[in-house]
Amino acid sequence: MLTVGVDIGGTKIAAGIVDEDGTILERTRWETDPEDLARIDGSIVAAITELRAGFQVGAVGVAAAGFVSPRRDSVMFAPNIAWRDYPLRDRIAESVDLPIVVENDANAAGWAEFRFGAGRDVEHMVMVTIGTGVGGAIIVDGHLLRGAYGVAAEIGHLKMVPNGHYCGCGHEGCWERYASGQALTLAARHRVTTDPEGGRAMQRIAGEGHRIKGPHVARAAMEGDPTALEIFGDLGRWIGMGCASLAAVLDPELIVIGGGVAEAGELFLDAAREGFVDHLSARGHRPEARIELAVLGNDAGIIGAGDLARL
Amino acid sequence: MLTVGVDIGGTKIAAGIVDEDGTILERTRWETDPEDLARIDGSIVAAITELRAGFQVGAVGVAAAGFVSPRRDSVMFAPNIAWRDYPLRDRIAESVDLPIVVENDANAAGWAEFRFGAGRDVEHMVMVTIGTGVGGAIIVDGHLLRGAYGVAAEIGHLKMVPNGHYCGCGHEGCWERYASGQALTLAARHRVTTDPEGGRAMQRIAGEGHRIKGPHVARAAMEGDPTALEIFGDLGRWIGMGCASLAAVLDPELIVIGGGVAEAGELFLDAAREGFVDHLSARGHRPEARIELAVLGNDAGIIGAGDLARL
Amino acid sequence: MLTVGVDIGGTKIAAGIVDEDGTILERTRWETDPEDLARIDGSIVAAITELRAGFQVGAVGVAAAGFVSPRRDSVMFAPNIAWRDYPLRDRIAESVDLPIVVENDANAAGWAEFRFGAGRDVEHMVMVTIGTGVGGAIIVDGHLLRGAYGVAAEIGHLKMVPNGHYCGCGHEGCWERYASGQALTLAARHRVTTDPEGGRAMQRIAGEGHRIKGPHVARAAMEGDPTALEIFGDLGRWIGMGCASLAAVLDPELIVIGGGVAEAGELFLDAAREGFVDHLSARGHRPEARIELAVLGNDAGIIGAGDLARL
Amino acid sequence: MLTVGVDIGGTKIAAGIVDEDGTILERTRWETDPEDLARIDGSIVAAITELRAGFQVGAVGVAAAGFVSPRRDSVMFAPNIAWRDYPLRDRIAESVDLPIVVENDANAAGWAEFRFGAGRDVEHMVMVTIGTGVGGAIIVDGHLLRGAYGVAAEIGHLKMVPNGHYCGCGHEGCWERYASGQALTLAARHRVTTDPEGGRAMQRIAGEGHRIKGPHVARAAMEGDPTALEIFGDLGRWIGMGCASLAAVLDPELIVIGGGVAEAGELFLDAAREGFVDHLSARGHRPEARIELAVLGNDAGIIGAGDLARL
Repeated sequence: MLTVGVDIGGTKIAAGIVDEDGTILERTRWETDPEDLARIDGSIVAAITELRAGFQVGAVGVAAAGFVSPRRDSVMFAPNIAWRDYPLRDRIAESVDLPIVVENDANAAGWAEFRFGAGRDVEHMVMVTIGTGVGGAIIVDGHLLRGAYGVAAEIGHLKMVPNGHYCGCGHEGCWERYASGQALTLAARHRVTTDPEGGRAMQRIAGEGHRIKGPHVARAAMEGDPTALEIFGDLGRWIGMGCASLAAVLDPELIVIGGGVAEAGELFLDAAREGFVDHLSARGHRPEARIELAVLGNDAGIIGAGDLARL
Repeated sequence: MLTVGVDIGGTKIAAGIVDEDGTILERTRWETDPEDLARIDGSIVAAITELRAGFQVGAVGVAAAGFVSPRRDSVMFAPNIAWRDYPLRDRIAESVDLPIVVENDANAAGWAEFRFGAGRDVEHMVMVTIGTGVGGAIIVDGHLLRGAYGVAAEIGHLKMVPNGHYCGCGHEGCWERYASGQALTLAARHRVTTDPEGGRAMQRIAGEGHRIKGPHVARAAMEGDPTALEIFGDLGRWIGMGCASLAAVLDPELIVIGGGVAEAGELFLDAAREGFVDHLSARGHRPEARIELAVLGNDAGIIGAGDLARL
Repeated sequence: MLTVGVDIGGTKIAAGIVDEDGTILERTRWETDPEDLARIDGSIVAAITELRAGFQVGAVGVAAAGFVSPRRDSVMFAPNIAWRDYPLRDRIAESVDLPIVVENDANAAGWAEFRFGAGRDVEHMVMVTIGTGVGGAIIVDGHLLRGAYGVAAEIGHLKMVPNGHYCGCGHEGCWERYASGQALTLAARHRVTTDPEGGRAMQRIAGEGHRIKGPHVARAAMEGDPTALEIFGDLGRWIGMGCASLAAVLDPELIVIGGGVAEAGELFLDAAREGFVDHLSARGHRPEARIELAVLGNDAGIIGAGDLARL
Repeated sequence: MLTVGVDIGGTKIAAGIVDEDGTILERTRWETDPEDLARIDGSIVAAITELRAGFQVGAVGVAAAGFVSPRRDSVMFAPNIAWRDYPLRDRIAESVDLPIVVENDANAAGWAEFRFGAGRDVEHMVMVTIGTGVGGAIIVDGHLLRGAYGVAAEIGHLKMVPNGHYCGCGHEGCWERYASGQALTLAARHRVTTDPEGGRAMQRIAGEGHRIKGPHVARAAMEGDPTALEIFGDLGRWIGMGCASLAAVLDPELIVIGGGVAEAGELFLDAAREGFVDHLSARGHRPEARIELAVLGNDAGIIGAGDLARL
């Protein structure tokens, strides 16, 4: 059975025809507006309709950044789109006569890696999605762990540092304040303040007078700048340390690091593995989870949403 | 079907006949020696044999403190008994012609609470067992989460404080250094050093010149001593803070607090709930897990081991 | 001998005639612009000239927020005014034929409290100035501790929390991130995010849709709002904890809490004293420093600058 | 004028004739017993009497590990000797007809470095004495900072890590828990637990089955063992981080690292300097203190005690 997978971002909707091997046979992309919920609904329907024209489709999966109800029909809350207890499935179903499921986008991406990507050979996997913040997905015994209310795997909010950096969630010291793209950027900017000499390469790449962003740090690191490499090393160690907490709870066989920052994965993967074993409890008395980079890139949301629609 | 549940401690083995409602119909108890593995095997067999004499038994479940293999047949490592990759199931099977499963003791106790105790009405539950250290069990969608290698739910080793108290595991800042009976005891002893006046009631109960232990702190707190109450309050807040991390990962409906320290649960339960909501991410945008005390007490190990033998 | 004390703020200059008892006999105030250094010089000269008209003045002391050279003649760096290695004394001396000294403003305020205020009976004192940030002054054996380069007593940058809140200085976890007016404000704002119910009184006082500021928290606390009181209690405990570190280093007889936030001192003084003794090392084996509120208010800068000009 | 300097340890008393250049002209050493106060008094007197036989001596300085009264006559409290408000000066004066002063031993050692050692060219200096714990001495404008009650410079109890390692003082997270010989030893022992492979060289040097001690870590590091080098690097960074807090308060020109662990100073000095600048506030806007190793070794106590007797 073919399905449509839809991945809803803040300003665009990406969708594709997904086959049973996780291959995207056809794609489309529609612009949208995070404030205009009716337009988002319309764009989703348009994307599905466009794709169905050429294929026999059996179901639709929609991946959205937000808290999705356990029945997979509505979005209870979204940080970047104005959904509040929004019956997304039913709104789409008004115009689309197919079974439809709504999924959290990190869950969809994690599921794709589990089924067709880095985790295709394991049964217990954690996906750590490192973008602006840190999200995740948890696979237990081959099943997606959604939790009692559909909001499991909000792993970016593991408490890592009492009285630590303030988080967008209002709390202090959440893992994503230390292990995300935003953490990387802030570390670089503060480093320039306290160590202008060391920060020179990053600032040059950003342009004098411009704020340093993650890609500037990555570029500097790839050019061998020791400060940028050190910042990526710190990022990796924080990633690894959080993975050790996840391993204490979940005992996965594999931890997959994905998300936009993982594109620079080679700059922090060794440090993440080192931070992981340095903090893994009962080391030596248990097999150790592997840590690997995701392989599906930006397609993971579409593929995972499409595949989860089959279940 | 009736089963035998066996709960192996360091110096004694408790066992019982467990029916399908989780009731213990008959009990026995045998002494043992944590250094003498053959004697432990013998005591287990003796207990089973004794109990089978009066009942029609269909299976045996054995709960042990240690890392149990995912196939539930051997103990890979135990902190207090000399088992190392020990084929416990097969050793017992030499003398007992019944299906036998080995389970981690915290998993068994959590399973008992899930099936017959505080969690009997939920499908997603976390058990936090607070004794000398902190252990746990995780129920996802009605299934026990064992992990890829059988060592999931080692929740006492969540990283809570970078560079924090050294843990028996060799690392720093594990949750159990702040949320266990041992944490309570150490907090009380150090308090007497820095605040002899405030520590007077606890020291009096312990006896002058004697080291303060957990029950002394509990007694002082029950008598209204403000220092002891403050120490229990701190314990509760640390428990709650760790539960918030667990909720971020697992999104349970219920968190059950058990173990020996939970017998003094009324002294820290409010603080634990307060610490939980104070650190719960996305509060207000999600249903909140309840935190309740366990109800089965010391029987949970026998009941859970017996019931898991049925699966 | 009478002196002129000048206290330079970001947008205004306050000055006064100071007698040998620390009384301000006459005052004036001039507007200024933090970007226009020549205008600041001119306003200082104008204020001095105005005040000298009616009094026989022997010297001038100028208090400025910034790093002042050990020779007390230039400002090496100022956070809010564009001074960089600025020869402030010589610029004023071009128009004023009196001995002139430049002092750090927190040092001046601390000196005033030491000579004429809360510390007039002690020889070893620390002043903790709590405004937007945290500054200070240290009096050792009756002398102001300036340090080798004139920048001692930057006590707001004591390291309190490894990997803690980012500071304006570029580092993480400085004391002022936890013990200042800005810390109070941020704590209140984040509290509204994580606990809208508890934050209601503070938000109502700030006005719906407006950002909460320090005075709103203070007003709510004075009205008995438990959340605002809790936030002030936390502030106080952080203040006390830092004071314990200062006592370990300096062993003062008295710690004076001043600055704008100290106007709400009754809301956190008990918590500060509690936090102090809770973290004071060798308690019971040493006399304990007292913690008191400053008594000279905003006049401390003028008085201290004027008095230091006599030395 | 020649003086006698006496340095009292737990089990021995070292004393010497000290001239005005800080040279020890003659030495002696007497055994003692930390529990037998009368014997300690007797040994001190015997040492003084022995040394006076051959020299014209004008005064006696006695250095003791403990809190010394501001009048420099009694020991209020000592951690390792049973002195409690003990009038040490008067007890010695019963048998010695010379002016006698009692000083804290870390103050004496710091004073020696200031007058004749690493700090002989500066006026503002901090000595950080790294032995089992961390002690110190502070020189401000050429004077020893004793504090209001004689207990200043207890810098080992700077609060570095909230909820961090328990300290002998009863509190958590004191600097000496991270920056001392004991911290080094504990770090090494825990490392062997969590990383037996990495800890192999240190364990081999300690002997199989023996506990690792500081000198074993130092030996392994000198042989190039990466784990031991990493542990020394961590030690250095913690030392440097605390020095940054001291610089924020005291603004010294020089920080001298002494004590037994400083004998292995080359193993951590670079890391200490790096940790210092990494955490120094207002870097770039102020001259930076230098960090140097002490040069007088174990003689510093005798020399400093002798020299302070002249003041």
